[in-house]
Amino acid sequence: MAATVSTLSPVTPGEQRLLDAAYQQALKSLREGGIPIGSALGLPDGTVLAVGHNLRVQTGDTTAHAEVSCIRAAGRRRDWHTLVLASTLSPCVMCTGATLLHRVPRVVVGENRTFLGAEDLFAARGVSLAVAQEARCIALMERFIAERPELWNEDIGVPPAR
Amino acid sequence: MAATVSTLSPVTPGEQRLLDAAYQQALKSLREGGIPIGSALGLPDGTVLAVGHNLRVQTGDTTAHAEVSCIRAAGRRRDWHTLVLASTLSPCVMCTGATLLHRVPRVVVGENRTFLGAEDLFAARGVSLAVAQEARCIALMERFIAERPELWNEDIGVPPAR
Repeated sequence: MAATVSTLSPVTPGEQRLLDAAYQQALKSLREGGIPIGSALGLPDGTVLAVGHNLRVQTGDTTAHAEVSCIRAAGRRRDWHTLVLASTLSPCVMCTGATLLHRVPRVVVGENRTFLGAEDLFAARGVSLAVAQEARCIALMERFIAERPELWNEDIGVPPAR
Repeated sequence: MAATVSTLSPVTPGEQRLLDAAYQQALKSLREGGIPIGSALGLPDGTVLAVGHNLRVQTGDTTAHAEVSCIRAAGRRRDWHTLVLASTLSPCVMCTGATLLHRVPRVVVGENRTFLGAEDLFAARGVSLAVAQEARCIALMERFIAERPELWNEDIGVPPAR
């Protein structure tokens, strides 16, 4: 497990287990030829309730970012307001919106150096955020972005050059 | 077709065709026992490229709001920045985020009286918005909310009472 440096609020041991599960999802997606971003949803004590990873390459679903896939996998439930969402990368504006819609009150992020999502929206809506800034998460994204820049741009909505 | 009163910018004839397709999707969802909200994605001239409706009841996918289902149905493409998204109801914060991620520049909404989504986010991010305030869309949602308040609260993330 990489050393963590938290911002805004510390990552608890339970939350670290959720982040570990998210990282395993990112590795799984990479092995499948997909975009290496993973998420896990669970209890504050680290009990994992659902996991997911980016599925753009695997299924062609452009809304299947890791966080959306994870929330989708969690199914219909009414306890969202008691859960923690962990993700290897800072959630984009869609995934931030999905978190806000479901009223998940706590988000733990692996890193926000290679991509900074809509963290301002979390702050504005009162979601508690921790950024672990894990070296393993940064390394995974840096390599992916260097090797597949066009796929990465597609995933974050950048129109094609020209 | 119901008479329209536009706000912010007028609904063009092409956009009205997209809104009509979205309304048909809402009726389809209602017939299936689902939440009656529909969307369509298309060209400014009214050519429909993809449609979708809420699927919470039909598939148990809580991220499958109409707009997300519609964007999902559109598949992997790079022309999002040239398209128009029409929806029978003001998009929630998740669907607003999905629209922003994909950089769809224009949103046409059937009504925002029964539910006001994250229209402030569209404005802040430069998305052009039109609200038709159609009587048929308002009537559809008013009846649904009156008949199925618990399902509606679930769909917009309200935790259970108690």
